[in-house]
Amino acid sequence: MGLSKPFLDTISTDSVRGPLNLITDVPGVTVGQTTFNSGTHHTGITVVKPTTDNVFLNKLPAAAHVINGFGKSTGLVQINELGTLETPIVLTNTFAVGTAETALAEDMMAENPAIGDTTSTVNPVIMECNDGDINDIRDVFITKEDVLKTLHHTGQSFEEGTVGAGVGMSCYDLKGGIGSASRVIKIDGKSFTMGALVLSNYGFLRDLNIYNVPVGEKLAAFNAEKKQKEKGSIVTILATDIPFNSRQLTRIAKRASVGITRTGAFIGNGSGEIVLAFSTANRISHYPKTELSSQAAITDDKIDRYFRMTVSVVEEAILSVLTHATTLNDRKGNPRLSLQDALQGYQTHYQDPEVARLQTQLGI
Amino acid sequence: MGLSKPFLDTISTDSVRGPLNLITDVPGVTVGQTTFNSGTHHTGITVVKPTTDNVFLNKLPAAAHVINGFGKSTGLVQINELGTLETPIVLTNTFAVGTAETALAEDMMAENPAIGDTTSTVNPVIMECNDGDINDIRDVFITKEDVLKTLHHTGQSFEEGTVGAGVGMSCYDLKGGIGSASRVIKIDGKSFTMGALVLSNYGFLRDLNIYNVPVGEKLAAFNAEKKQKEKGSIVTILATDIPFNSRQLTRIAKRASVGITRTGAFIGNGSGEIVLAFSTANRISHYPKTELSSQAAITDDKIDRYFRMTVSVVEEAILSVLTHATTLNDRKGNPRLSLQDALQGYQTHYQDPEVARLQTQLGI
Amino acid sequence: MGLSKPFLDTISTDSVRGPLNLITDVPGVTVGQTTFNSGTHHTGITVVKPTTDNVFLNKLPAAAHVINGFGKSTGLVQINELGTLETPIVLTNTFAVGTAETALAEDMMAENPAIGDTTSTVNPVIMECNDGDINDIRDVFITKEDVLKTLHHTGQSFEEGTVGAGVGMSCYDLKGGIGSASRVIKIDGKSFTMGALVLSNYGFLRDLNIYNVPVGEKLAAFNAEKKQKEKGSIVTILATDIPFNSRQLTRIAKRASVGITRTGAFIGNGSGEIVLAFSTANRISHYPKTELSSQAAITDDKIDRYFRMTVSVVEEAILSVLTHATTLNDRKGNPRLSLQDALQGYQTHYQDPEVARLQTQLGI
Amino acid sequence: MGLSKPFLDTISTDSVRGPLNLITDVPGVTVGQTTFNSGTHHTGITVVKPTTDNVFLNKLPAAAHVINGFGKSTGLVQINELGTLETPIVLTNTFAVGTAETALAEDMMAENPAIGDTTSTVNPVIMECNDGDINDIRDVFITKEDVLKTLHHTGQSFEEGTVGAGVGMSCYDLKGGIGSASRVIKIDGKSFTMGALVLSNYGFLRDLNIYNVPVGEKLAAFNAEKKQKEKGSIVTILATDIPFNSRQLTRIAKRASVGITRTGAFIGNGSGEIVLAFSTANRISHYPKTELSSQAAITDDKIDRYFRMTVSVVEEAILSVLTHATTLNDRKGNPRLSLQDALQGYQTHYQDPEVARLQTQLGI
Repeated sequence: MGLSKPFLDTISTDSVRGPLNLITDVPGVTVGQTTFNSGTHHTGITVVKPTTDNVFLNKLPAAAHVINGFGKSTGLVQINELGTLETPIVLTNTFAVGTAETALAEDMMAENPAIGDTTSTVNPVIMECNDGDINDIRDVFITKEDVLKTLHHTGQSFEEGTVGAGVGMSCYDLKGGIGSASRVIKIDGKSFTMGALVLSNYGFLRDLNIYNVPVGEKLAAFNAEKKQKEKGSIVTILATDIPFNSRQLTRIAKRASVGITRTGAFIGNGSGEIVLAFSTANRISHYPKTELSSQAAITDDKIDRYFRMTVSVVEEAILSVLTHATTLNDRKGNPRLSLQDALQGYQTHYQDPEVARLQTQLGI
Repeated sequence: MGLSKPFLDTISTDSVRGPLNLITDVPGVTVGQTTFNSGTHHTGITVVKPTTDNVFLNKLPAAAHVINGFGKSTGLVQINELGTLETPIVLTNTFAVGTAETALAEDMMAENPAIGDTTSTVNPVIMECNDGDINDIRDVFITKEDVLKTLHHTGQSFEEGTVGAGVGMSCYDLKGGIGSASRVIKIDGKSFTMGALVLSNYGFLRDLNIYNVPVGEKLAAFNAEKKQKEKGSIVTILATDIPFNSRQLTRIAKRASVGITRTGAFIGNGSGEIVLAFSTANRISHYPKTELSSQAAITDDKIDRYFRMTVSVVEEAILSVLTHATTLNDRKGNPRLSLQDALQGYQTHYQDPEVARLQTQLGI
Repeated sequence: MGLSKPFLDTISTDSVRGPLNLITDVPGVTVGQTTFNSGTHHTGITVVKPTTDNVFLNKLPAAAHVINGFGKSTGLVQINELGTLETPIVLTNTFAVGTAETALAEDMMAENPAIGDTTSTVNPVIMECNDGDINDIRDVFITKEDVLKTLHHTGQSFEEGTVGAGVGMSCYDLKGGIGSASRVIKIDGKSFTMGALVLSNYGFLRDLNIYNVPVGEKLAAFNAEKKQKEKGSIVTILATDIPFNSRQLTRIAKRASVGITRTGAFIGNGSGEIVLAFSTANRISHYPKTELSSQAAITDDKIDRYFRMTVSVVEEAILSVLTHATTLNDRKGNPRLSLQDALQGYQTHYQDPEVARLQTQLGI
Repeated sequence: MGLSKPFLDTISTDSVRGPLNLITDVPGVTVGQTTFNSGTHHTGITVVKPTTDNVFLNKLPAAAHVINGFGKSTGLVQINELGTLETPIVLTNTFAVGTAETALAEDMMAENPAIGDTTSTVNPVIMECNDGDINDIRDVFITKEDVLKTLHHTGQSFEEGTVGAGVGMSCYDLKGGIGSASRVIKIDGKSFTMGALVLSNYGFLRDLNIYNVPVGEKLAAFNAEKKQKEKGSIVTILATDIPFNSRQLTRIAKRASVGITRTGAFIGNGSGEIVLAFSTANRISHYPKTELSSQAAITDDKIDRYFRMTVSVVEEAILSVLTHATTLNDRKGNPRLSLQDALQGYQTHYQDPEVARLQTQLGI
């Protein structure tokens, strides 16, 4: 549902939120999630299905951008070469990537008997963060069946926060997870949508800045900040029905980095920051009847307004993570506080009016 | 001299300013500038000499990073292939690039009779922004001699603001130009320096944010914001005596983008944002006596603190541009206000305490 | 006119030569050249005009690919970002790049009064090789007027070999220079053209292999091979009216490397191997009336046949250099032999039937 | 053991074969293989262990180069960011990548209890080709245990041809698979080694050219050439104890493409051509005691001879595939002929002296 309160948008002026304020506002995009949250298992799976079509037969223009490549995502090499996405996207923890890859390949084979038989193989896209602070990530228990089930149960509505692949994630040393937002913009009189979904596991507490409030500094002074090295990451999925080609999607994907750093982060060494962007406007047929065709296109001339919209929707998706995630103990038994709980704890001591205003603005 | 007041550093905690707070705090680095600022001529030349040695014979590890490639810099292709810088760096306006390239090549030939004779040619590095809002850029009047003179008159001390290549530049629709800053950090008990010099010509007024004050929004509401498309750019030079190799310098250069966006910008379509980073710690001989050697190296393990320092020094260099630049009329006769003048004009109407505090913090 | 004899094509089976067998077979593409070949001046200028339109107002999809970046070309950064070409392409010697850049910028300004005034600047594309073995490259005598004159006198017909930018170039230690070739192919029943123009200055004699004859090894044993390090380069321009987008043009450009190495070279350290590819099928307006549009497109599905055609046309263009270039003394007074003269000298001693057959096949 | 006969080297003159003529001539490098070759199972696993040390604790400088990204390798994103290899490399078929990734991650966790607990995760490198012409690739039967067993049984000696990951591979429409070769070269008086291992599954029959004999054309005319689209790929591993840094390894890796195309291929659309190069000369500690250190280095000045050596060792490794692989029926029951069998069949009809000479040269 995105943020419960209006996002204080200082970057995009000509776009508005979509009806769900989720990536699924982009027509055809659905999301499914499986959550494991008991015992030592605090992890899960989040699937983004880019279209209701058979995406292998009708591929989508796509681009991947690596902001910082400390990450283990699969499928990016081929996306960069061919500029197309031909599978759903599976997000999970780092050590479940192999299982997810096998499951997604099998699912694609089941849907497309020609794969690996009369035609080529398929390029599964799996993206990941390391939830090892909270989840016992060395216990690789997610099964192929878990992934397949998630792939088969996607819809327009989905939860954010401590859910799916986001269960065990952290964000600015607070509780992280899944967040989403969307924007609608008018182009030549027609409405188009862009949506973001982030799996957010990055950042140091002391850097967190929300709406110009250096809240991380305040909280870090209050809670003795953990001195750990960042081992987090943030995966960003951008979906749109604007007819960008893969070169333009690369440019759009780069601007996600601005949204990511606007809450204060600096692209840490250990932070795998990877963006995948796709457009549903044109389809690239696996079996084209002709070589020549005509495709919907959009000029770069006014691309600044889509850059601004990208920054805005990514920034809001990250705030949506922070406001939806709920406190969970880490493996050492220390609470990984939600932003809400952290702010409330802080306020019991300080009654800081700047923080009070922020709590109101965020609705937490 | 960098900012006149202390920089409110929220990102780097273990570095301090160098003695001059300029890129020339890095031992061996000098800067020279020529300023044209009369009639319709509002442009100039800024040179960064990376070393007092013959840099062609003793090349420096270097890397270029293109944040957004709407720019006409020369020399980057070879830097990316060979990982070395072999000339000074010349900054000027877009249409003076050709003249600067010819001049720099000739200067290198004069210093090195072997170039183009018994050895290879040389790779001149010219970087540029478009100062056409203020300068009559179509009047290409800068001569080879102007460039040569600048190359031959460099030193440790130099001016910032409306000077050198920065004369006609704008920054967030205010007066831009040249800015610099430096940092000193301890590594294994020894002190090392990093310096930044920016030629800053980027940003939309309404996005400007300084120390968490959305000052651009305030000013834009006050002055009817110009609706122009961004045609600016920002060139960033990073110098250091930390023994980074070219791969690490690429990573460092990428973090300049965080410093650039921390004042509110979003990497606009028309903004050529290009970073050149070099290290003076190792030299790559043009005529090596042996193939094998040993080089000083630094691990990536704690590179986060250099990333933070990079963000900090770039952010301060940009603020230094804004606080040093002085109001100048654009080609249409409208004042391109300095930040100081813009804030003072605003305050005559509003007496905004947040802005007053910012004026004090910036010393303007 | 390309090779005088049929090219022994072992790679492309479904394309045929265009009527002129030159890059100018692509509708709208013209070439102009200025040759300096007396005294110590053995250099020149070659211009490729991509269209008869105003290319700044109607930009072309384009891509640059750097095989080995030991080179000083300008304009590639922006082509890679925006995927468009907006000027003619000027080829010349390394130290004339600055003059050519200034001249091309001025010519674009003259044609487009808005440049640098009411709209952005312009991205001049200059490509170069080092002709210093033959030409006194340190004597930078080419003027802006020389470049402007060349820009203004282009046509469909042009010479190959020791001409234009190719006057002082070498190829496999033999005389190099300018070469061209073209191909016509049927797509969905319609004819399309691809043309190549190379400025060829690369390779070691002993590696030269033509039509499976290791002719370089033979010649190198005959003439004591010069032991010099490669300082050459090869610039390749690919033009086509097939509606490739910039991503596809990047893939096409990469295959030029196969054509380049098919005559035996290995991509030497000092060889700047850079490919620029553009398509005339779609135009990107500088002042688009709408944001949305429709563009001609082609699937990647059968791109192998265009890859093969690219390899073929580049390989033939290089052979065309070698068969058109004529012997010229280098700066030390030693003849830089044409392939024809080198083979004839060899044959006066050896009467090698394999070489005789090759002479016949090449028509030299 | 590499080629049984001397390789006719036309590119590298100052290197000689290593004692085993395998990648394992590089000190510390070992290889293990598991072969499945019965029923419908014609596939396997090949492991390259880069060092006898704990490679996670003592990482190796490394680089990945994507010639054509139609491929599903994992781990390349992080190698390109950090320039280090921290696991063995597993080669297998496309749909076994997920299983191999899970197995390799588990093996690394078993060896390093800190992974995923007190330190970061690990970056498994899996590389693949599609063996679906011969193997029933849709039957994903390879288990984690198969991969673990292969990881634990590596040595200096190993088989080539129809073995390990190469069982079901094709090369130029003939039987492909695993091949290797090595070179020793003197640098400043000391001996250094480079080795290549290829998993070769690329190429169209008609393009095959060996030692200047267009043998593919001959064979394709004889056997009606299959008209299939290339769905192959070639994975190349380069190991060396020369102290290249990751930037230089990238340059070395690029030259593998020349070795790959020297037998006639053109980098097809569907051919995933990916090169991974690593150096064992320097180690990057996971837990460095100091930040500053000193590393062995080598100048780029004479890198041409290593480029030539790279081309040579890759070309020989590919010929080693072709001469070691043995005929195997494809899924349709048609023999995928070994080069030996194909040439013998051809010769029963033609007694072509050029082919006879080639058979002698190759020892088949």
